[in-house]
Amino acid sequence: MSSERLIYLPLGGAGEIGMNCYVYGYGAPDKERLIVVDLGVTFPDMDGSPGVDLIFPDVAWLEERRDRIEAVFITHAHEDHVGAVGHLFERLGAKVYARPFTANIARGKLEEHGFSEQAVQTCSIWPETVTAGPFKVGFVPISHSIPESSGLVIDSPAGRVVHSGDFKLDETPIVGEPFDPALWAEVARPGVKALVCDSTNVFSPHEGRSEATVGPEIETLISNASGMVVATTFASNVARVKTLAEAGARAGRSVCLLGRAMRRMIEAAIQTGVLKDFPTVIGPEDVVQMPRENVLLLVTGSQGERRAASAQLARGKFHGITLAEGDLFLFSSKTIPGNERGVIRIINQLSEQGVDVVDDSSGRYHVSGHANRPDLERLQQIVDPQIVVPMHGEHRHLREHTRLAQANGRAAVLAVNGMMVDLSGNEPKVAEYVETGRTYLDGSVQIGALDGIVRDRIRMALNGHVIVTVIMDEEDEPLGDPWCEVMGLSEMGRNNTPLVDILEADLGQFLGRAKEKTLTDDDRMEDEMRRVVRQTCQAEIGKKPEVSVIVSRLS
Amino acid sequence: MSSERLIYLPLGGAGEIGMNCYVYGYGAPDKERLIVVDLGVTFPDMDGSPGVDLIFPDVAWLEERRDRIEAVFITHAHEDHVGAVGHLFERLGAKVYARPFTANIARGKLEEHGFSEQAVQTCSIWPETVTAGPFKVGFVPISHSIPESSGLVIDSPAGRVVHSGDFKLDETPIVGEPFDPALWAEVARPGVKALVCDSTNVFSPHEGRSEATVGPEIETLISNASGMVVATTFASNVARVKTLAEAGARAGRSVCLLGRAMRRMIEAAIQTGVLKDFPTVIGPEDVVQMPRENVLLLVTGSQGERRAASAQLARGKFHGITLAEGDLFLFSSKTIPGNERGVIRIINQLSEQGVDVVDDSSGRYHVSGHANRPDLERLQQIVDPQIVVPMHGEHRHLREHTRLAQANGRAAVLAVNGMMVDLSGNEPKVAEYVETGRTYLDGSVQIGALDGIVRDRIRMALNGHVIVTVIMDEEDEPLGDPWCEVMGLSEMGRNNTPLVDILEADLGQFLGRAKEKTLTDDDRMEDEMRRVVRQTCQAEIGKKPEVSVIVSRLS
Repeated sequence: MSSERLIYLPLGGAGEIGMNCYVYGYGAPDKERLIVVDLGVTFPDMDGSPGVDLIFPDVAWLEERRDRIEAVFITHAHEDHVGAVGHLFERLGAKVYARPFTANIARGKLEEHGFSEQAVQTCSIWPETVTAGPFKVGFVPISHSIPESSGLVIDSPAGRVVHSGDFKLDETPIVGEPFDPALWAEVARPGVKALVCDSTNVFSPHEGRSEATVGPEIETLISNASGMVVATTFASNVARVKTLAEAGARAGRSVCLLGRAMRRMIEAAIQTGVLKDFPTVIGPEDVVQMPRENVLLLVTGSQGERRAASAQLARGKFHGITLAEGDLFLFSSKTIPGNERGVIRIINQLSEQGVDVVDDSSGRYHVSGHANRPDLERLQQIVDPQIVVPMHGEHRHLREHTRLAQANGRAAVLAVNGMMVDLSGNEPKVAEYVETGRTYLDGSVQIGALDGIVRDRIRMALNGHVIVTVIMDEEDEPLGDPWCEVMGLSEMGRNNTPLVDILEADLGQFLGRAKEKTLTDDDRMEDEMRRVVRQTCQAEIGKKPEVSVIVSRLS
Repeated sequence: MSSERLIYLPLGGAGEIGMNCYVYGYGAPDKERLIVVDLGVTFPDMDGSPGVDLIFPDVAWLEERRDRIEAVFITHAHEDHVGAVGHLFERLGAKVYARPFTANIARGKLEEHGFSEQAVQTCSIWPETVTAGPFKVGFVPISHSIPESSGLVIDSPAGRVVHSGDFKLDETPIVGEPFDPALWAEVARPGVKALVCDSTNVFSPHEGRSEATVGPEIETLISNASGMVVATTFASNVARVKTLAEAGARAGRSVCLLGRAMRRMIEAAIQTGVLKDFPTVIGPEDVVQMPRENVLLLVTGSQGERRAASAQLARGKFHGITLAEGDLFLFSSKTIPGNERGVIRIINQLSEQGVDVVDDSSGRYHVSGHANRPDLERLQQIVDPQIVVPMHGEHRHLREHTRLAQANGRAAVLAVNGMMVDLSGNEPKVAEYVETGRTYLDGSVQIGALDGIVRDRIRMALNGHVIVTVIMDEEDEPLGDPWCEVMGLSEMGRNNTPLVDILEADLGQFLGRAKEKTLTDDDRMEDEMRRVVRQTCQAEIGKKPEVSVIVSRLS
């Protein structure tokens, strides 16, 4: 079994929506030369990752094989595809390839980490290709909700793989290249071994709508507004930002961009020539001097993020601007599942200010950037692959997509993160299971999701924390009573006695009775005192807290 | 200004969906005799209330006036209306009135807290009334997603108030009384001063659908299923549970109820005669011995609750039952905003087991229990009140509902929790602002939401916790070095040095340089050592943790 093989290995994005990272390899088993497609992030939440700043795939497997990595390709500039490039660049040590707009964003991220902009190579589109070891890789334009999104044509000695990237079939995308069926037919012509394909909207039964359909609705809404208009969308959706800005300009409104990402994305789009004729932009200092009905704010925070412009405006003044009765706030966006609470909080805060909120519930002011079920079928018909490999989806999406492909008579494989698939034969075959996981950016350090650090935080949040200190003298006898502090627990126990008093009394009693065997052994003392604390807390307040016992010995 | 007045005061449920608690009063200002409508709970979440078991309205205002409380009326047995009755009964000390099914549930809650079932009085429907001080209160049947839901007719010397309760206009509700327009016209006949009205679905533009419309869809789905069928819905939706069970029975399936609430609700419905002819139920021990295609499980946990039957089945074996490839899992429910993550987790776990999941995205297997916008207008037309007071909604719902009523030519007032409204005149008028809030059930104790206890937990979860102990000798000199423990923080700092080593070194250095003024003053020592710890952590790991400093003095 030393013949060469073509492998596919998702390290992130297969079994979840977020932190995309896919590996392709070609060569003899365990000697494959590797390319990496996308290095994305996913966002923490209080339920599972409190205090964490950012989450990216655990790339330990790649890092151990860093001498075999030929290149990193970034399909497009969404955070779940490019967000980890600055954090992981050093660990992988491979050059990054992307088209100009994506490269602009990637360079910004590398520069923030002190890496040279040389690390990113700007690429032209297919049929030009980048040679990366045994692979030739070309960027094929495809429409999505960000400029210059691309599928990848990955040619290897074992045949052609097409990696769809995130996509929709939009022939009028406002900004960027329309979907071009002839180009994709061209890609398909020599025969395609496998299509690794976006699964996000596999449950959406109808053909997707074009970005161009939201323009007239937005135009009507803004032209009928009488107060200030604020609109939020993903900053990276440059087409939408353009549509909003132009509708504003035509309604006699000056446009102000609020939020770092909003300014950064528009700047990148203008610098790279993706965006032309964007209306003149004014600063917040100009806004406050203008009549409200002459202003359109385009702001970040469509997902309810607490620190973004939307949330700040909802809470009160932001850069000197306050909203008022009769203003209009438009969510030109869909709320990603899990973000509902944050978005609803903003809507209610705006309601308290008398602001009218329009969201996407009518379906008029937003369209998805992903291909719906019939669109997936259409691309698969055009590309006509031997094998369909669903990616970019939770398990339910991958499973449904696998079944859809199979129903259409194709081989398909449900490959989740860590499942290495051998694509060399006519049928996909699971070659190996690789350990995968998540890496947390926590402050300035990277920690493993399973290191126990975040688990301890969650436990303190659920159970509270009791700290016990006891000083042992030279004879291994307690010097005075143990001392307790509680954090995150009721101060009072039953019968209105302070909890720490009861704890200290119970611990004092315990120590008074404790045998020498216990008193001379720190571990034993800690275990037993922890047990006393938990029992007392359970009896007094009905909770079993986390307990830290600190034994100081004077000896 | 000593003339008598009629007041309305929401303490919970106005400005939020959950923990409903509304107060009505009649009498001279500050001497009003009071009645309470509903004592509900809302559920904690990791974002805002980690570790909390249950949330209910802060009833301090009522408790201070407990001698003026005539009675508590419960409109229906949903947790957000009856859930706090056991927890708050003793503090309010007033008798509870409800219709039989609701009374059955309320009694169960009181008994759990050791109160006599005598505390709950079972009521007949209007025109029978309960006299409660200056009020006469009658229960008017109205359809909702639970049996025996009721509006209240509240007669006072200042006129008639109608409290809608939660409702929809369903003339074929399967279980319980249909909406009866003639009855409500009868209620309206003498003239209604105010309608205090459910606002939940004010943004739903179309007429609501009847519970009867889901039956045929469910029937088709279950009769076509080939493996085990599992269906989840709110246990209290007895009509839905009946529809599901009967569809199962007709498809030759034996029905098994899983989850405490499911069994409790069906038991209450049978005991009170609300539910008749429910199919025979089998236990989980019988299920495991039957062919899969002969089983229908009706389970709790439609909102993704981690400990409910749905989540347990999704994670693996529950009461000996495991799901398998080809089984069908039906969410006959809508996911309440904020619960998406939990529900999606379950769906993906089921997908991993090969189970087919059907949810409400098609709109076929669930209908809402609340009146949509045109239904609200219809009830208001029938009741024809002078004043509309929107309740049971977030701020955005109350505001929209206020505007809807005003657009229809009625006086309306947007009254949020704590806003006391004087309904005596022709126009509603804000009489007073009362301090309100939330009470947390935390383990076995009640704590205030603003006590700082949960805030400390959230801070530990976000920032981690460092504990510093230092022993001071008789001369107020540190005895040895300070000692650190960290919880919820990276163990390693920059340069791969253990964080505690660096902290202890920095603290040792600080103490070496500290002046007597500091070393003799515990507060000062704690503040300055906390600052040292936070600075060092910021430099080493980019985080500023919570810090507990414990100074032990041998003197």
